[in-house]
Amino acid sequence: MELLDTTLRDGAQMRGISFSLEDKFKVARCLDAVGVSIIEAGSPGYNPKDMGFFERAPSLGLKNSTIAAFGNTRRPGVNAGDDANLAALVSCGAGVITLVGKCWDYHVREVLKTSNDENLRMIYDSVRYLSEKGLRVIFDAEHFFDGSKADPAYSAECLEAAYSAGARTLCLCDTNGGAFPSRVSAVTAGAVARFSSRAAIGIHCHNDGGMAVANTICAFEAGATHIQVTVNGYGERCGNADLCSVVPNIQIKAGCECLPRGSLALLTGISRQISEIANIPHSDLAPFVGANAFSHKAGMHIDGVGKANDTFEHIDPSSIGNDRRFLLSEAAGRSFLLKKIQRVAPGADKDSPIAKKAVERLKELEFEGYQYEGAEASFELEIKKLLNIYTPHFSLVEFKVIVSEPSVVGVGAAAMIKINVDGQDEITADEGDGPVEALDRAIRKAMERFYPLLKNMKLTDYKVRVIDSTSATAASVRVLIESTDGTDTWTTVGVDVDVIHASWKALVDSMEYMLMKGV
Amino acid sequence: MELLDTTLRDGAQMRGISFSLEDKFKVARCLDAVGVSIIEAGSPGYNPKDMGFFERAPSLGLKNSTIAAFGNTRRPGVNAGDDANLAALVSCGAGVITLVGKCWDYHVREVLKTSNDENLRMIYDSVRYLSEKGLRVIFDAEHFFDGSKADPAYSAECLEAAYSAGARTLCLCDTNGGAFPSRVSAVTAGAVARFSSRAAIGIHCHNDGGMAVANTICAFEAGATHIQVTVNGYGERCGNADLCSVVPNIQIKAGCECLPRGSLALLTGISRQISEIANIPHSDLAPFVGANAFSHKAGMHIDGVGKANDTFEHIDPSSIGNDRRFLLSEAAGRSFLLKKIQRVAPGADKDSPIAKKAVERLKELEFEGYQYEGAEASFELEIKKLLNIYTPHFSLVEFKVIVSEPSVVGVGAAAMIKINVDGQDEITADEGDGPVEALDRAIRKAMERFYPLLKNMKLTDYKVRVIDSTSATAASVRVLIESTDGTDTWTTVGVDVDVIHASWKALVDSMEYMLMKGV
Repeated sequence: MELLDTTLRDGAQMRGISFSLEDKFKVARCLDAVGVSIIEAGSPGYNPKDMGFFERAPSLGLKNSTIAAFGNTRRPGVNAGDDANLAALVSCGAGVITLVGKCWDYHVREVLKTSNDENLRMIYDSVRYLSEKGLRVIFDAEHFFDGSKADPAYSAECLEAAYSAGARTLCLCDTNGGAFPSRVSAVTAGAVARFSSRAAIGIHCHNDGGMAVANTICAFEAGATHIQVTVNGYGERCGNADLCSVVPNIQIKAGCECLPRGSLALLTGISRQISEIANIPHSDLAPFVGANAFSHKAGMHIDGVGKANDTFEHIDPSSIGNDRRFLLSEAAGRSFLLKKIQRVAPGADKDSPIAKKAVERLKELEFEGYQYEGAEASFELEIKKLLNIYTPHFSLVEFKVIVSEPSVVGVGAAAMIKINVDGQDEITADEGDGPVEALDRAIRKAMERFYPLLKNMKLTDYKVRVIDSTSATAASVRVLIESTDGTDTWTTVGVDVDVIHASWKALVDSMEYMLMKGV
Repeated sequence: MELLDTTLRDGAQMRGISFSLEDKFKVARCLDAVGVSIIEAGSPGYNPKDMGFFERAPSLGLKNSTIAAFGNTRRPGVNAGDDANLAALVSCGAGVITLVGKCWDYHVREVLKTSNDENLRMIYDSVRYLSEKGLRVIFDAEHFFDGSKADPAYSAECLEAAYSAGARTLCLCDTNGGAFPSRVSAVTAGAVARFSSRAAIGIHCHNDGGMAVANTICAFEAGATHIQVTVNGYGERCGNADLCSVVPNIQIKAGCECLPRGSLALLTGISRQISEIANIPHSDLAPFVGANAFSHKAGMHIDGVGKANDTFEHIDPSSIGNDRRFLLSEAAGRSFLLKKIQRVAPGADKDSPIAKKAVERLKELEFEGYQYEGAEASFELEIKKLLNIYTPHFSLVEFKVIVSEPSVVGVGAAAMIKINVDGQDEITADEGDGPVEALDRAIRKAMERFYPLLKNMKLTDYKVRVIDSTSATAASVRVLIESTDGTDTWTTVGVDVDVIHASWKALVDSMEYMLMKGV
């Protein structure tokens, strides 16, 4: 099984992604660390930035991965030796070339504006030219699933032309991403049978029908042994088959190795790291590696997983470096809540007064608009308050936030704050683009005098939700804040009639939680 | 083909989703408008909030959709007539019940802690009890794909028990979401063959392997005629099969009707509207309905689509109400925008300077985080500003908003404002629970002196969304405000780095829009 990752080429085609050269090196190092066989890194013939990557690629010292360059067959009516794009593929220094050629007569006619025969010669000449330079050519058979529907004989001739010129990997591409799994299975099986021992058949799927992962799995089951993917499914339009779904499906479920043993547990981390590099928020819903992938909210599911993990989980989350989460909500049963309470009060059982009190309190808070799903830090603080085993680290004397239009000296808001810690007052102020930012800065400034530890704390996410919007601007507001100290990450929640007070509550919980857990 | 949408039940299980009762009504109205056959609206037996929905459901006046309630088979060792959950299903008033029963012996043993025979009786008794009350029962065969692997005879007996008690729709559920398409095809075909003319076979897929849509399509191809989905794939863990992918695949590609003709073009709008209600950002990568779905960035794709749309598009975007976008081209969606522009400037054509200018301005605004989906009032004002046919009804001289803790005389915020109308200044102030409410009251007070008409205007909805949450509290904020004058309703939008300035912009647009349209 050979895995080719094209995050740096097809992934970079996604709206919103713009990798710098340094970004590309970081992504390549991630892919090498996880053991991807081939990294398709760009199109040196079209993109000067890509050429910069290929020039410096040898200095990366990759241990597991080979670098591939991507390009088209020669232009119609031009000698392969005179084609600027083929020349760039040769001179870029990559040992593997993924060469895309048209396999759909409709495209030959409408886009290339040439004859079917000339397209076959373009494929043959280009593959041969590159092969003779000692390069390994992977032939990307563009639109193979549309082409083989329109004219199966012609699309097969395209593969044969690439094969006879020296390509030993023939990758079937669903370029428009609209194929059904049944068709991918049948067409792939046909190509596998035709080329059996002569060449390896590959698969490259787009997600326009929402089926890129499944189509890749169907091709694998039909005998494809070369698989093209991108991390997090980044790619043109709706993206490509997602490495983070394809690999666990093949490796854990079908038992066929595509990454070195041990690499799989890095998958969740790599997925999140590359989303940081791409500056695209990591999808909570992502299969296997998403924050929700092993989260349980329904009471009966929580109950089931509590009895045996695999009752409601298709794989063990730790195998791909992810974690199980139980979400706290009305729908979650009391038995689950009890476990959380027991972490704070080990003696509590289902019928103990504290458990009943906690459930009651939770219901009250949910009615006010609190939602503790993923805001476990606030929940833990709340339980400790109920048990009277929690002492706040400060008390607020007063704050005042002022928002002005037009803004004063370039900022929109200023906050003054006065707090008391162990009898000592501290009064200070700060400013920010908005009132919450100003308040956040002011309270940190005041607190850090007493608790220097808080300097390590950073806000990483901030979400606002209006809970009951029928009463318009006076409706309740729920704020969720995610914080980190560089090691742990925790989320807190605050609810109030206005966004500033709600944010204030979540900010306070976040600092209190960090101080409670210590260094 | 029967389509059951479970956004309000399985979708509500998603982390981060917490529908209010009003939200649920809005979602139900969307689903009815698009022509979904059955809306599974909640679990009256477990969730008191859901019972509230069922009580008021008849007053919704749905035209196309039937409401279904979801619940479990009776508990082990209890008479169906004594089971509180079954009683709630009967009393909730829904005419259709989706009844989930276990079909995996492992679950019967580990989760129910009962015998295989008792589980069969639980299925039989529960279906019969509901059928005898005149209710239509859809049997949700939980974990059918895992169960039929572990013990195919037993899982088939579970279906037979439901059938013999009166269920005529047997829905096979991939509850853990880990099945492969090949297995879903084979198992579904087996069930279809077994029940042929006796019962309809359904499919309910989860997305843990990233294959929920494809598995649903495979089941459809294998003969399933009842399909369960959620809008945008919302659901427990990695979500459910996405209505917005499943329906176009079946209806456009396989040519089988599951929504009334004409409804398909509403799909993109409904998808975005429901993401606004759920307050979950709409996924750009979503197949069919995402902002990227028909966006073309690669030069050769743009060139290809320019020559013939279907060279790089698997369907026509307008068929599902989406638009083509060229990311590198100035022609971005111009013809689409033109329609909107022509409403304000009927003479404008595609190449007129105003159309070009409008496209540029909209691109800039979208880049800043504006989104005019459902904020038509702001969009109309923006176009009029571009055409220089709009004169604002006032100018702001200054405002100052102060938020205090502890609150002064019982309110959290106060706002002072000074405006100018036709050379006349007006300075006033007001207070509110939060800063936005205080500002809203103050500006109305000032404006009503000049425009008494505004006394009829009321805010009916207020939504906040943090757009780019990576920079925490300093991220951009988008505010949507819905207003009414008792007859018309309109929505305006404002974007800024802080919630107060963003709200201010939306408030101003709302008043300007009302004054522009007159009485």
